[in-house]
Amino acid sequence: MYPLLPSLRVVEAASFIAAPSCTLHLLQMGAEVICIDQAGGGPDFNRWPLAPGGSSSLYWEGLNKGKKSVAIDYSKPEGRELATRIITASGETAGLFVTNFPASGFLSHERLRTLRPDLITVRVMGWADGRQAVDYTVNAAIGVPLMTGPEAHDGPVNHVLPAWDLLTGAYAAFCLVAAERSRRETGRGREIRLPLSDIAIASIGHLGWIAEAALTGRDRERLGNTLFGAFGRDFATADGQRLMIVAITPRQWQGLIDILGIGPAIAAIEAAHGISFARDEGLRFEHRERLYPIFAQAIAARTTDALAPALEAGGMCWAPYQSLSDALRHDPALSAANPLLARTAHPDGVYLTPGAAATLPGETRGSPPSAPALGRDTDQVLAEVLGLPDGEIGRLHDAGLVAGPA
Amino acid sequence: MYPLLPSLRVVEAASFIAAPSCTLHLLQMGAEVICIDQAGGGPDFNRWPLAPGGSSSLYWEGLNKGKKSVAIDYSKPEGRELATRIITASGETAGLFVTNFPASGFLSHERLRTLRPDLITVRVMGWADGRQAVDYTVNAAIGVPLMTGPEAHDGPVNHVLPAWDLLTGAYAAFCLVAAERSRRETGRGREIRLPLSDIAIASIGHLGWIAEAALTGRDRERLGNTLFGAFGRDFATADGQRLMIVAITPRQWQGLIDILGIGPAIAAIEAAHGISFARDEGLRFEHRERLYPIFAQAIAARTTDALAPALEAGGMCWAPYQSLSDALRHDPALSAANPLLARTAHPDGVYLTPGAAATLPGETRGSPPSAPALGRDTDQVLAEVLGLPDGEIGRLHDAGLVAGPA
Repeated sequence: MYPLLPSLRVVEAASFIAAPSCTLHLLQMGAEVICIDQAGGGPDFNRWPLAPGGSSSLYWEGLNKGKKSVAIDYSKPEGRELATRIITASGETAGLFVTNFPASGFLSHERLRTLRPDLITVRVMGWADGRQAVDYTVNAAIGVPLMTGPEAHDGPVNHVLPAWDLLTGAYAAFCLVAAERSRRETGRGREIRLPLSDIAIASIGHLGWIAEAALTGRDRERLGNTLFGAFGRDFATADGQRLMIVAITPRQWQGLIDILGIGPAIAAIEAAHGISFARDEGLRFEHRERLYPIFAQAIAARTTDALAPALEAGGMCWAPYQSLSDALRHDPALSAANPLLARTAHPDGVYLTPGAAATLPGETRGSPPSAPALGRDTDQVLAEVLGLPDGEIGRLHDAGLVAGPA
Repeated sequence: MYPLLPSLRVVEAASFIAAPSCTLHLLQMGAEVICIDQAGGGPDFNRWPLAPGGSSSLYWEGLNKGKKSVAIDYSKPEGRELATRIITASGETAGLFVTNFPASGFLSHERLRTLRPDLITVRVMGWADGRQAVDYTVNAAIGVPLMTGPEAHDGPVNHVLPAWDLLTGAYAAFCLVAAERSRRETGRGREIRLPLSDIAIASIGHLGWIAEAALTGRDRERLGNTLFGAFGRDFATADGQRLMIVAITPRQWQGLIDILGIGPAIAAIEAAHGISFARDEGLRFEHRERLYPIFAQAIAARTTDALAPALEAGGMCWAPYQSLSDALRHDPALSAANPLLARTAHPDGVYLTPGAAATLPGETRGSPPSAPALGRDTDQVLAEVLGLPDGEIGRLHDAGLVAGPA
């Protein structure tokens, strides 16, 4: 873990991707993260993918590595009260809470702040009005699946990456640290609400998509594997491999032309139309039906083994299409040779586990330990954070209000 | 703008999505952002989409709204020196730099820190080893396009959302604020490198995808529009509309069954196999070939007008597939009724413009003003940040080292 946030203590009561990834980012920068989970497991405790031959969730394990786990029975009022006390426990760099529980429920900010006025709550939501949403439904509502997929395909094409969840998680971590900075200056806590839908809408607004649709009254056409507004698509080589190749900068554009030896053919198009592609990626897009066949033919005449070294040496922006398991078998970027990844032992096996995505020169990244068994840290947190004596902790167990590891 | 980071001054020298969206997030939380651009425009100054009938980039406008613009000729040594001085200018809450320039070039952290030892540099990169990358090539290399798209499709299906760029931008904002917090405690600056590739690899690791492929030795199958490991896909209604419907929680699952009146058919499957779908989303996925036809038939028998109110009233997780321009015409979430969005005047027209994606109850979000004309703030920044007198600023213009608005 990197040492940027060594003093922060963050409490999480959440499931799914956004909120747990938020606290994972905080943890990987040095914060302590205490997860309060429903005894027996929250709604995503058994989410697929599962470990082969087992029932434990590789998904849950990935999102909760290095965190402390407290198991509480939320269905009982006294259990809820206990969770509330852990969330609002004292400490200058505590009082930081990340959740996806409903804004109006027992973990409402209004209720929690009566116990700790300077509490910072970061709340992940679906739609801003409280309606449920996941990446798939948000994407459907803002038009992404109608821009995605093969040109000839009829109907929507969902993409599989939970991009808004991941983005909400990182943005939530940003908001939490920003709010904590503000609290140190003003003493003031606050709630920050992060609807998945607004994260998505803001993002496509920042990218100019809303402006484009609003000002033209039209939707961006479906382009298959081709980049919009620039030069790039997939090409098949002589050996049947497909490569994603993109040329953005003048250097990439000229370099690719040189590697493929297609300078005269490109120059002929430029001469015929009185244009230059060298510094105008928009022109390359406008003339794509003329340009792509020239590139495609040149690439189809070469094997991957012949092309790859030239693309590499020329500093081109490209990659072969490969499956994840293929990448794990032969790509150094997806091996322990990448300092991002470490072979970590988990209950279900040893596999490559990422630390923080950032590289901090001069610092040791390390890799978080595996995810805790559910309730592993219940007793320790009750003793250290709430100062409960052993006898009281025993009573809570006996009353079924808290649970230790199964 | 929200008032969380009112005292920070951040300098950006960057193009494309990740770094500019990082500083936009900072700006929307109250920071001052000074963009140093190549006079005449950086490599993405004319990136598509363009305004209709004009040549100005809606993309650039979206990512740079509210920022200050300084135009410098980087090709001249004295221009580079000037940029360096703005980046490393004094101020307790300045010395924050976001870039995607090469780590080894004239904006290397090692060089800049000789002028300001506590400088914080956040550097967006392609691959960690310095190779170029964009979302499309990173996705190709980690297998996403082979999991995406119609089940019967042969070959990769790219998705159009620049998810890793956006995620890198938000994560970069988090890293910058975390590093600034650390600097306030230790006095120490640092460089933070953020390769797009490592952001992607870490993310799929956190989601359990790497573990799944590593432990099973197999790749996740292509599932079309169907969710992996849970219940959800697109369904056609009687009127030909397609709806994305997801049922994750027990309440969503039972609610959907009740709305569609298919309880007996579902119960029959449960009885035949001795299982209960109520609390096990994995079972719903395993039995999807039995379940989906029952749901599809019930939905195909109903119109959208009949279904939508019931789905809404039941708190279901769903959305109609709609194009972005359709959404802009009739969906309140993509209208000025959403406090996220404001009708803002830009040089090419008035369109809905997002403020910060977060909602801070009790605070006024406001909407950033439009993007600056390139070089609009050159003179002001030279005077206020570097303290240059008018005569010296005039000399820099005369020498072609800086530029004002065209």
